[in-house]
Amino acid sequence: MSTETIAPNDTSAAAELTDQEIFAAHEGGKLSIASTVPLSNKRDLSIAYTPGVAQVSRAIHADPELAKSHTWAQRLVAVVSDGTAVLGLGNIGPSASLPVMEGKSALFKAFGELDSIPLVLNTTDVDEIVETLVRLRPSFGAVNLEDIAAPRCFELEEKLIEALDCPVMHDDQHGTAVVVLAALTGAAKVTGRGLEELRVVISGAGAAGIAIAEILLTAGIDDVVLLDSRGVINSERADIAADPASKKAQMAQRSNPRGISGGPGEALLGADVFVGVSSSKLDEEHLKLMNHSSIVFALSNPDPEVLPEVASKYAAVVATGRSDFPNQINNVLAFPGIFRGALDAGARRITPAMKVAAARAIAELADDKLSASYIVPSPLDPRVAPAVTAAVAAAVEAEAN
Amino acid sequence: MSTETIAPNDTSAAAELTDQEIFAAHEGGKLSIASTVPLSNKRDLSIAYTPGVAQVSRAIHADPELAKSHTWAQRLVAVVSDGTAVLGLGNIGPSASLPVMEGKSALFKAFGELDSIPLVLNTTDVDEIVETLVRLRPSFGAVNLEDIAAPRCFELEEKLIEALDCPVMHDDQHGTAVVVLAALTGAAKVTGRGLEELRVVISGAGAAGIAIAEILLTAGIDDVVLLDSRGVINSERADIAADPASKKAQMAQRSNPRGISGGPGEALLGADVFVGVSSSKLDEEHLKLMNHSSIVFALSNPDPEVLPEVASKYAAVVATGRSDFPNQINNVLAFPGIFRGALDAGARRITPAMKVAAARAIAELADDKLSASYIVPSPLDPRVAPAVTAAVAAAVEAEAN
Repeated sequence: MSTETIAPNDTSAAAELTDQEIFAAHEGGKLSIASTVPLSNKRDLSIAYTPGVAQVSRAIHADPELAKSHTWAQRLVAVVSDGTAVLGLGNIGPSASLPVMEGKSALFKAFGELDSIPLVLNTTDVDEIVETLVRLRPSFGAVNLEDIAAPRCFELEEKLIEALDCPVMHDDQHGTAVVVLAALTGAAKVTGRGLEELRVVISGAGAAGIAIAEILLTAGIDDVVLLDSRGVINSERADIAADPASKKAQMAQRSNPRGISGGPGEALLGADVFVGVSSSKLDEEHLKLMNHSSIVFALSNPDPEVLPEVASKYAAVVATGRSDFPNQINNVLAFPGIFRGALDAGARRITPAMKVAAARAIAELADDKLSASYIVPSPLDPRVAPAVTAAVAAAVEAEAN
Repeated sequence: MSTETIAPNDTSAAAELTDQEIFAAHEGGKLSIASTVPLSNKRDLSIAYTPGVAQVSRAIHADPELAKSHTWAQRLVAVVSDGTAVLGLGNIGPSASLPVMEGKSALFKAFGELDSIPLVLNTTDVDEIVETLVRLRPSFGAVNLEDIAAPRCFELEEKLIEALDCPVMHDDQHGTAVVVLAALTGAAKVTGRGLEELRVVISGAGAAGIAIAEILLTAGIDDVVLLDSRGVINSERADIAADPASKKAQMAQRSNPRGISGGPGEALLGADVFVGVSSSKLDEEHLKLMNHSSIVFALSNPDPEVLPEVASKYAAVVATGRSDFPNQINNVLAFPGIFRGALDAGARRITPAMKVAAARAIAELADDKLSASYIVPSPLDPRVAPAVTAAVAAAVEAEAN
């Protein structure tokens, strides 16, 4: 993939997908294991297996650091799910989530040149998932959590980061957040504003919404307001005050600096940016309340919170999660390079600085052709993963010093 | 591999292996993941990942049987080890065992065309290993246990077979046993005797020794005597009487029909067959006590219990585990076809009948060129895995009826 140039006028997605071609593509699964060593004569066998392999095992036993250079584990990403929040399908269980995890592994290889294995779990208990991955720790080099329901995903990610001495990232949170920050960087330039001045409303306070709020705050945007199905998130709301340890309560402390309350109408009045990561629709009436030259990211898939043709009547820049509209906000811009950069640099954790560096690298690649319909590069742009990899590795170096 | 013809005079193993070439071959690990679907344009992405993959996940959620045809799990073997009995190196731990497990996965692919993933565990607790694999059950289709120390390996295999609804086999036990039975079938023919009449002495009562005794008894050989470091195994021995639930105690009941006691001298007096699967040396004096036209399998690696040039002075047929002597007894003759046959036939378990069928299939392939120096096919013979696969699948069918 990285050596391939994607045609700028890729119209491949134009025709409707048929069930037949989808199911045919997934038959037998989408992954295959290959040996990187030859096995065609006795000498090959003696090198790859007994007796030769004993030398390598003995050397790793004597010096455990050699496992990093002489096994595949150091560069292997475990793609882990319990199947509780799969795409827009909800809690469909681990077996039904496996086609998604296989696809994720295929993307890791195609875009990040990283090997990965799907591990889908028959338990949704946070401590059991942590315990399972701790026991398997010598088998992999990083963990990509995927499609795990909020708020359990927050606790799981935190506990795993504590328990494992390797990079761990819940992509539905942080991959999305990184690409949103990149896209917002481009959109701010297109509309002639500084990133930090933007007033941002995030609709949805699940995995993606909370992580987007976090990265925007980290990037210096002060005026972030979160909405969930009960309205604006603030510390006065009874349900939030009742659960002060929750992510929503923590975010109520850090966001909403003007202390507003109410619903989408109150939140969007004078806002510069709408970021939708829930299935709640955005009314045209509320769009009208936003600031001039507004920015609308309607990221729900497959049905955006508002269709681009409607949003464009009011907004200067519109983005969605879909490949059939301009400005596709797609995690694949971020996660292959984030994991590859972290592993290349030997990072133990994926830090906020690494995520912001990834977002800046993605945004910079759009600079040369920046316009209202090109605020981020295409998910298939072969420059992206190497640039993100380099930026993340540099951030690891910078934090080490 | 299966389409390749191995030169009958493969002299590739003749030259000494150097550390340099061994370590170079293992650098970066020996496995790689590949996508079986294209990912080069937006349409490809829409089919392999969102939105197309949602159709497949939804379908599996509605009909869990579809996971067998539309994920890779059904044909994926988990190669599982805790690193407690790695080759001849002992308990070197999970990370140091990983090069062996990667090699095993490479062999599964080359010989059985099966995908597999190494899972090495940071625990040696039987119940924790079982629990871990139960939680991961939707991720794979079969379990190959590898390099797990006896007697824990017996308990682990039994508990896993109970806990998982898929094929589970400890290859150090049963892979070895199947190939020994195949080789003994050939050796009996070469020396003009019936298999069932043979008097067999097995030196070593660990994972391999116990499993060899079991398969020989299943195949109709009554006179099997086991030796461990304390001598002949019989029910009168104090250490065995003290632990009546142990595999040795169970085997004391089923083997040694003439009720002998003592050491190698008493066991080998008049014996037809010696099978060595321990590191104990076989004295030339003891060899002299065996029956005429005796059969010696000295399978310890890399140092056989007796060297072929010594054994040949007394025995009609000699085999080792090494590729540089004739008659190599190598598990790779068995495990790829056993797992492939079991998975092809949808078997829930790997039964004694399936193992005996595998041994017969291997033995039959040696029939056309049978001689004292060719009692089993070469581990690289491309006919072997397909023949074992077919025989095992047929055994599954026969048991189902």
